[in-house]
Amino acid sequence: MNFQTQAVAARGASLELSTLTRKAKDAALHAMADALAAVEADLLAANAEDVAAARAAGTEESLIDRLALSAARVAGMVQGLRDLAALPDPVGDVIRGWRLAGGVKVTQVRVPFGVIGIIYESRPNVTADAAGICLKSGNAALLRGSSAALHSNRVTVAALRRGLESVGVSPDAVHLVEGGRDVTGELMRARGLVDVLIPRGGAGLIRAVVDGSTVPVIETGTGNCHIFVDASADLDSAVAILLNAKAQRPSVCNAAETLLVHRDVADAFLPTALAALAEAGVTVHGDEATAGFSDAVVPARDDEYDAEYLTLDLAARVVGGIDEAIEHIRRHTTGHSETIVTGDRRAADHFIASVDAAAVLVNASSRFVDGGEFGFGAEIGISTQKLHARGPMGLQEMTSYKYIVEGDGQIRS
Amino acid sequence: MNFQTQAVAARGASLELSTLTRKAKDAALHAMADALAAVEADLLAANAEDVAAARAAGTEESLIDRLALSAARVAGMVQGLRDLAALPDPVGDVIRGWRLAGGVKVTQVRVPFGVIGIIYESRPNVTADAAGICLKSGNAALLRGSSAALHSNRVTVAALRRGLESVGVSPDAVHLVEGGRDVTGELMRARGLVDVLIPRGGAGLIRAVVDGSTVPVIETGTGNCHIFVDASADLDSAVAILLNAKAQRPSVCNAAETLLVHRDVADAFLPTALAALAEAGVTVHGDEATAGFSDAVVPARDDEYDAEYLTLDLAARVVGGIDEAIEHIRRHTTGHSETIVTGDRRAADHFIASVDAAAVLVNASSRFVDGGEFGFGAEIGISTQKLHARGPMGLQEMTSYKYIVEGDGQIRS
Repeated sequence: MNFQTQAVAARGASLELSTLTRKAKDAALHAMADALAAVEADLLAANAEDVAAARAAGTEESLIDRLALSAARVAGMVQGLRDLAALPDPVGDVIRGWRLAGGVKVTQVRVPFGVIGIIYESRPNVTADAAGICLKSGNAALLRGSSAALHSNRVTVAALRRGLESVGVSPDAVHLVEGGRDVTGELMRARGLVDVLIPRGGAGLIRAVVDGSTVPVIETGTGNCHIFVDASADLDSAVAILLNAKAQRPSVCNAAETLLVHRDVADAFLPTALAALAEAGVTVHGDEATAGFSDAVVPARDDEYDAEYLTLDLAARVVGGIDEAIEHIRRHTTGHSETIVTGDRRAADHFIASVDAAAVLVNASSRFVDGGEFGFGAEIGISTQKLHARGPMGLQEMTSYKYIVEGDGQIRS
Repeated sequence: MNFQTQAVAARGASLELSTLTRKAKDAALHAMADALAAVEADLLAANAEDVAAARAAGTEESLIDRLALSAARVAGMVQGLRDLAALPDPVGDVIRGWRLAGGVKVTQVRVPFGVIGIIYESRPNVTADAAGICLKSGNAALLRGSSAALHSNRVTVAALRRGLESVGVSPDAVHLVEGGRDVTGELMRARGLVDVLIPRGGAGLIRAVVDGSTVPVIETGTGNCHIFVDASADLDSAVAILLNAKAQRPSVCNAAETLLVHRDVADAFLPTALAALAEAGVTVHGDEATAGFSDAVVPARDDEYDAEYLTLDLAARVVGGIDEAIEHIRRHTTGHSETIVTGDRRAADHFIASVDAAAVLVNASSRFVDGGEFGFGAEIGISTQKLHARGPMGLQEMTSYKYIVEGDGQIRS
């Protein structure tokens, strides 16, 4: 099927999906899970092909690790679909309702978007994950995966479609979009057929989608997250939060990338903090003031304050006070998650009011900014734009709404 | 000031606006109103220049009417600003809040977008209107008006900026973006400086903004609104709703453009309906079946079912039943407002579930789909896209949100 055919078929299926009951969608998710479990061997074989091709092409190991599936990872994909069935269905929820002067009743109700395009990189588990989230939220999915994962994605999508068919749901609810760059272009310009595009991947991919799309885009992911340690901070707590935010899982977007320390506590905080970071294997790229506290600190180039390392590296700077910290964050933030550690309520309120990000944290690790931690159950990504959804996007964020306006013959005077 | 300078200044002002109290914003709105009232004579003189130039350029009278101001229209602009001061402030509203397992408190709070670009056509009243709505919702405004209204817009924006200054609010909260098409291009690609673009105008303008923008766009306005008269409809009520929706104010986007009549009531409904429409000066462009009921009906070309007339013209078609009506609407809708007139609850529910539009109406005039009628008090436009806001956009729809995450040292395990 070429892209146009797929998009038209998905649009048709979306009409069916929009009126499916939660019971029918949950049955479909379990059927998708069963069908995927049934092809585990084929999927692992196909994935081995993808991995071999990637290795032959000299792909670096960190990417190979994202591409490679194991029995455990496949089991995780299957369980992920079953977990979605256990979540509440946002479609049909009444957001608000009221009556107009003449008695006309207005009800604002959640509805699916319709057709959602997901453009993502090599992780093949995203294929089942995104298809499941779209289905549970009543949306048809056009999945544009990486060519590096093509064999894995083909086996996965074929299984998911079989699962849908087995319970009488149109398999056209899920499509794998294949072909060259020109096809990605068709997807990005399919306004009218595709309601929303969600790019999942690195900054380059997201930038390309934002620039090339006429379909509305929800930008996700890049997180140059800061931690500001205020003069009044509990320093033990600050060290614990810093280590957790930086080192617990450095490769994710809610991990800390820059440490800002109030000059007045630099002496008391940095020696302990730098030792703890070194202990955890973190390389600190600091300004002169920071470097003064440890020979292990390497000098930070100015552009490093814009870096999303996603590794065990951390930029660090000593600042004159909270306003200098806020200024630094305004200049370098990607609008993801920004943290202050402070014992001063006024400082916390000033930071909350002045920092513009999807999440502003006070005395807690930025690692909590996550759909799972927030209790959303599922997450398609973390939005760093302000339109529609901001921060972790769960099932509710995968819906739009419509107004139902009911009267008994009222006209406008 | 060139565009970049204006955009940077607006970004700076938006930081101040985001933390202004409602009281300060309301005082600013009244000061803007006072300053605008004080320049009424200059504004009318400048507007007369614009009108004369437009006439000289052979502009059609309907456009001249939109461009022309009168003492009454200026008074309306002034009053509009004062009315905004009387509305509640959405900024700071808590949307929801909860606690995570470890006791971390999550609060989802409304915040302004930041900087909003409005690209609009000749109506000079939009300048004050849009500036006021942006200010009340805590957003800085980059106003890209039509060159045809340049003199009027300059006087208006200068007055609004003086008003802001008089109460100590940065005048950079409001800018008139001047210059050629290339400047519109700069505005549409100012991602990072501008948070949202809202085009207000005809389909051509909106299409151009959607195609040319990297800044997120909220599409507004085009309404090819249908009315389906079901077999079980109360026919007197159907005639009243039809006349109100088509003829009360034909030039607006929530006016009816196409009538679909169930075959079983064509004989009983169309003779009366066509007579009433003729009486109201409406020209009906119908299919053969419709034409059979009146010589006044002119034959409809197929493409007329896609037309948003915005005049006293109405396309009409007799359909075999509700599903044929839904099919017709799916093919031709712009997703604005679609109406069914019926006495059958099941038919109403089927129509509501099957028609994908910002508003679906049952036994009421589509003219109710309006920010004022909905009680929003102010309206920047009616969104016909599904991302972020759908339907009438009031002050609340001019905001985003952020998550405030507060703990006492919690880290993720």
